[in-house]
Amino acid sequence: MNGIAKTPAPPYYAVIFASQRTEGDNGYGNMADKMTELASQQSGFLGIESARDAGLGITVSYWDSLHAIQAWKENAAHQVAQRRGKSEWYQSFALRICKVERDYFFEM
Amino acid sequence: MNGIAKTPAPPYYAVIFASQRTEGDNGYGNMADKMTELASQQSGFLGIESARDAGLGITVSYWDSLHAIQAWKENAAHQVAQRRGKSEWYQSFALRICKVERDYFFEM
Repeated sequence: MNGIAKTPAPPYYAVIFASQRTEGDNGYGNMADKMTELASQQSGFLGIESARDAGLGITVSYWDSLHAIQAWKENAAHQVAQRRGKSEWYQSFALRICKVERDYFFEM
Repeated sequence: MNGIAKTPAPPYYAVIFASQRTEGDNGYGNMADKMTELASQQSGFLGIESARDAGLGITVSYWDSLHAIQAWKENAAHQVAQRRGKSEWYQSFALRICKVERDYFFEM
């Protein structure tokens, strides 16, 4: 779960979520862990990559179809988290839905 | 340059670069800054987002075409950096080329 996602051969889909947090944790860390766990149990989930530093957080989740992304968006527990995200946790965010057309992996 | 990229309306392209570093800086920080600067001067460059923590670094660059991505890949100074990346800086990485089909921005 922690590191580079082992995705299948393209095409597949990616959701790029870049965010700037509000001050303080306010229950964010706990909810983020829960959402990662819950996303990974969804049908069509392929993997997730995440990094955060002082300026920005980026989470990329990978999915086998747009349908799977839509289903995750509509998941009830995820919808609760989305609302808290907008009211408490995120100062700003960008969410981009993409089709992965090519990929390349390197290991030393 | 630091934060969420202000990209135009889709479609456009994204390069998702997820990496695990080797130990030590070895000139990486300086080169990363130079490459961000150089990428931003390329034709077709739309923006860049970057975050790194102990486990993983994720950099997403945005481009107006696959042609622009190819031209950046072939840039001479970037090719030197790519070679040093494989021999010195990265333990592993994944590079994914995507077409951004939809996006959504939020500001508190």
